[in-house]
Amino acid sequence: MSPIIQQDGRTRVVIENVTPRVDDGSFPVRRIIGDTVIVEADMFTDGHDAISCALLYKKEGASQWTEAFMEPLVNDRWRGTFKVEELGFYLYTVSAWIDRFQTWSHALEKRIEAKQDVTIDLIIGAEMIATAGRLAPPKEAAWHEIYADSVRAGGPDGLARAASAELADLMRRNAERLFSITCEQEFRVQVDPERARFGAWYELFPRSTSPVPGRHGTFKDLEARLPYVAAMNFDVLYLPPIHPIGRSFRKGRNNSTTAGPDDPGSPWAIGAAEGGHKAIHPDLGTLADFRHLVESAARYGLELALDIAFQCSPDHPYVTEHPEWFRKRPDGTIQYAENPPKKYQDIFPFDFETDAWRELWEELRSVVQFWVDQGVRIFRVDNPHTKAFAFWQWMIAEIKRDCPEAIFLAEAFTRPKVMHRLAKAGFTQSYNYFPWRNTKWELTQYLTDLTKTEVKEFFGPNLWPNTPDILPEYLQYGGRPAHMARFILAATLGPSYGIYGPVFELCENRPLAPGREEYLDSEKFEIRVWDLDRPDSLNSLIGQVNQIRRDNSAFRTNHNLRFHEVDNEQIIAYSKSSEDGSNDVLVVVNLDPHFKQSGFITLPLEEFGLDLRQPYQAHDLLTDARYLWHGARNYVELNPKSVPAHIFVIRRKVRTEHDFDYYQ
Amino acid sequence: MSPIIQQDGRTRVVIENVTPRVDDGSFPVRRIIGDTVIVEADMFTDGHDAISCALLYKKEGASQWTEAFMEPLVNDRWRGTFKVEELGFYLYTVSAWIDRFQTWSHALEKRIEAKQDVTIDLIIGAEMIATAGRLAPPKEAAWHEIYADSVRAGGPDGLARAASAELADLMRRNAERLFSITCEQEFRVQVDPERARFGAWYELFPRSTSPVPGRHGTFKDLEARLPYVAAMNFDVLYLPPIHPIGRSFRKGRNNSTTAGPDDPGSPWAIGAAEGGHKAIHPDLGTLADFRHLVESAARYGLELALDIAFQCSPDHPYVTEHPEWFRKRPDGTIQYAENPPKKYQDIFPFDFETDAWRELWEELRSVVQFWVDQGVRIFRVDNPHTKAFAFWQWMIAEIKRDCPEAIFLAEAFTRPKVMHRLAKAGFTQSYNYFPWRNTKWELTQYLTDLTKTEVKEFFGPNLWPNTPDILPEYLQYGGRPAHMARFILAATLGPSYGIYGPVFELCENRPLAPGREEYLDSEKFEIRVWDLDRPDSLNSLIGQVNQIRRDNSAFRTNHNLRFHEVDNEQIIAYSKSSEDGSNDVLVVVNLDPHFKQSGFITLPLEEFGLDLRQPYQAHDLLTDARYLWHGARNYVELNPKSVPAHIFVIRRKVRTEHDFDYYQ
Repeated sequence: MSPIIQQDGRTRVVIENVTPRVDDGSFPVRRIIGDTVIVEADMFTDGHDAISCALLYKKEGASQWTEAFMEPLVNDRWRGTFKVEELGFYLYTVSAWIDRFQTWSHALEKRIEAKQDVTIDLIIGAEMIATAGRLAPPKEAAWHEIYADSVRAGGPDGLARAASAELADLMRRNAERLFSITCEQEFRVQVDPERARFGAWYELFPRSTSPVPGRHGTFKDLEARLPYVAAMNFDVLYLPPIHPIGRSFRKGRNNSTTAGPDDPGSPWAIGAAEGGHKAIHPDLGTLADFRHLVESAARYGLELALDIAFQCSPDHPYVTEHPEWFRKRPDGTIQYAENPPKKYQDIFPFDFETDAWRELWEELRSVVQFWVDQGVRIFRVDNPHTKAFAFWQWMIAEIKRDCPEAIFLAEAFTRPKVMHRLAKAGFTQSYNYFPWRNTKWELTQYLTDLTKTEVKEFFGPNLWPNTPDILPEYLQYGGRPAHMARFILAATLGPSYGIYGPVFELCENRPLAPGREEYLDSEKFEIRVWDLDRPDSLNSLIGQVNQIRRDNSAFRTNHNLRFHEVDNEQIIAYSKSSEDGSNDVLVVVNLDPHFKQSGFITLPLEEFGLDLRQPYQAHDLLTDARYLWHGARNYVELNPKSVPAHIFVIRRKVRTEHDFDYYQ
Repeated sequence: MSPIIQQDGRTRVVIENVTPRVDDGSFPVRRIIGDTVIVEADMFTDGHDAISCALLYKKEGASQWTEAFMEPLVNDRWRGTFKVEELGFYLYTVSAWIDRFQTWSHALEKRIEAKQDVTIDLIIGAEMIATAGRLAPPKEAAWHEIYADSVRAGGPDGLARAASAELADLMRRNAERLFSITCEQEFRVQVDPERARFGAWYELFPRSTSPVPGRHGTFKDLEARLPYVAAMNFDVLYLPPIHPIGRSFRKGRNNSTTAGPDDPGSPWAIGAAEGGHKAIHPDLGTLADFRHLVESAARYGLELALDIAFQCSPDHPYVTEHPEWFRKRPDGTIQYAENPPKKYQDIFPFDFETDAWRELWEELRSVVQFWVDQGVRIFRVDNPHTKAFAFWQWMIAEIKRDCPEAIFLAEAFTRPKVMHRLAKAGFTQSYNYFPWRNTKWELTQYLTDLTKTEVKEFFGPNLWPNTPDILPEYLQYGGRPAHMARFILAATLGPSYGIYGPVFELCENRPLAPGREEYLDSEKFEIRVWDLDRPDSLNSLIGQVNQIRRDNSAFRTNHNLRFHEVDNEQIIAYSKSSEDGSNDVLVVVNLDPHFKQSGFITLPLEEFGLDLRQPYQAHDLLTDARYLWHGARNYVELNPKSVPAHIFVIRRKVRTEHDFDYYQ
């Protein structure tokens, strides 16, 4: 016989197309704790025999699989589910077998309907029942005897017993699964904490938090700023690098190549005589101050996120202690960062092709571990797309083995497949093209790609309307209304989003130069002082929207996003519904920052469980206005000068349209 | 270090999504001899380094891979091609590496543009060139020296040499591929003869070929029928089973359960005292007659296809010689075929769960091998979906190992995934739902599924408007015009199609009973005599269309099908273009068998390489009429009473619209 027969030739069931799976099963799918994982597969056999199918799952490392019977959908597809209740990894696969008893049972029913003689069929069935009884636990074996005898005897009693749910159940549990097949491949689910999917991030420069103009802000100053951030109902407070900053080739204000004596330098030029990636900038405080900050933030409901930027200033201790981790030029100098013809002489990249790569990896891992040991669980990783994928895959797995709640946000503004590969390699979340998706068409296309394609199984988008590196054109020319619109889009399109403040809430929008999408007088290169109490600040709107996000569970997931038709290209409308269907939100945003826009929005009432003939309530959570809507088409009008958006909760009518309390 | 590091951590390039591949690479893709296989993959690395990628391919069993450099498309996707020039299997995979020389070369160009000092860069380049020279074949090593020296020296000469195509070529061949990665998975292509994709099939019952009414036709009678079949320009002549027919429970006319003494029985009730699957029905002739028939058919350009029906009449010698291959009932009788409540007591199915499955498989393989040994290369397999997939996969692989030109057509009118699995298991072609796809919407949807989705990589549809088992309703009520329309659809929508004659060309369409889709007085159960010279026979139309298929290479492929808009739901229009673009055909069919229909057809002129401003010629190959068309929208009108279709060749204008000879 040919060697292609890998298994018993009598195995007649086949298994195909198990989902979810990422890249043929090479990478885990992502879920958060408490999620229900829906597993499907195509399973079938030749001929007319009935099959049964089981989902097998277990926590990684467990010795035993848990089994759950799967249900048939249409077209030979089967579905089973399991709940992930612990952080870490779960494994799943599927199994199938020809179910002789069910096959017999279906056939018997048809024979009886056709009034055929079933004497021999009953003998066949009784034999199957008795055989299964010999494999059954002792307390059930007796039942098998009883059923076998009764079926063999036939008559009204025997036929009733043959068709009974009790017998079907006994047989499902105890019948031998002859020639069963189990999918050889085991698929993985990575289970993360809820913050991996849902969170509002706020970024600020700690050195700009001093109440005294001109003085370098400290962790203590930052602690005093915590109530301000917490009042806006943020979940994560993210700090740019807090390490000593190099002096060689230090950049001056507005990225000039010569720094003045008082210029603080870019926090991303990491490393100086005072230390490197495990040290704290002396002007910010001590490690003890930092630990205190982490604890204080937690008391305000804020998780601290640190920046991981794996690169060195020329003054970093690594440069002299581990010259083998850097590439040398023929003149003996170390190769600085370049993207020809641009040169970044203040930055030395690590050489991931060094012979000493194992030591380098180990050291970089220890950097992350060091901050994990200080209580940090969330890391925003700078430019991960310029470091080896294999390194990230290893490093993140190493960290998460002992700290499965760790979250890594990739700052990867790069080509789509590179971005996706970083996610597959282990990054929990990623920056993305949201800052440059402004029109209705662009937003609809892009968010549909992120939420409806295979990408949703592994890629967690985090939507940022601005960053210290990016002041999009739309914010530059659209001013405060544009900031409001982009903020509401970010906060409601995605479960995770962030802003870089206080520039954002203060609508700071002067570019470095016309046509440039960078901030003038950027905090990257200088210390700034902000007037947080300005009456035009968006801070209360932000606080309100973050509270709405917390109160409405529809905002907690990603793949439930649907866009709706509006007969005006300047107005975008989309809805989200919670898993349990109890919460439906509808967001409508005017994308034109200059003029009032209006139009008719068309809703798929059936999907909302609404009745065409009954009015329903659209309750705007921003203004508390309650609108009584009828039918699928309703009018909206939005003025960018006040608030350019509605965030509606949609409520079905319970009793009468005159009593709003009866909408639920 | 964690065990997840499978490779050198310095390997920075990644490979994803290699195509074509079927079920994550579990099954081979199908091509025919002479095809060019287009292989693509996503390949990229971190950072800005250039990469190079190679396609590796070889005939299965060869020790060495052949390498072909791949070209970048957009979005990190690469493409390479190879031609399959022998029957059997080819393997392919891809490889990629960081191309340091190209990276250097691109950077150098930018630095020179920016007027930077490149002294050190030239030293770096020269060193690379010299290093590669040490790996180069001796006759090229000297060139490396020369280039290295010249680049190191710089100046206009050095810079010109650095940028030269000759140096790029040398380096591409000789530079070491540091940290290169090769996709671990090897993908397979199954290469079949052209007949696997392209062929017109004709099915007839040999026993109905006697010139003497009432006499059982013989192979000699069938030889006399060959000129008739060949005149219709068919490629394959397919015969229902030619074996001895059982007498027990023999079916009579119109499938009655009692046969008269002269009823010949169904040829699918295989096996009698005279022999089984390797024997010939004595009334048809001898094995020598059969061999003679195979040779005669070949002289007429006809390949003979045999029916493989793995089932037995109760009189088959296997039943007594190998009772272990059948399932027993408790009363000691053998289990006949059933689909409860239907019973087929004239048929015993094999038990593919028998303990003796290896012997059974071996015997069934030997049946096919026996007919291969008689010169048969094409097999139409009856009801393969009621036998184990694993058996087919093994059997077909076994046969094709020594006879790679063998073709297997699956008669699998079953659920889509079962049908697809049989194709994956090795069937070359398959019957499909074409007989029941009649409206424009149905045809467009179904043929798009077959030709544009992943299915096209492994599933070869063979389109039959009728079979001995299927007389679709549309043919019943539509008469001769319906037969013409369905024939032209089958012959032009798919490269492979077939008809069951002479009922088809004679438009025989009386159903067994109202609402039944079976033929009355079916040849399955009786011998029929046909008047082949009837003036209303479609034989000359069939011959003409088959000649058009042979003359126009656009009809030879499957995935080139495109549907076009017509503003009349009764008219369907589609086109095909040959791989080399030299042949564009446009088919327009009136689906209404009763009334004349007309409408405007809209063509995507650009895809045909046509100019909006120039007229072009639509030459109807059925009527030889030549129409001068202008622009995208043109009028068509089709009368079902004459011919309900156009088969146009579309010709671009070369010189003047007044001289048709100048269209090409």
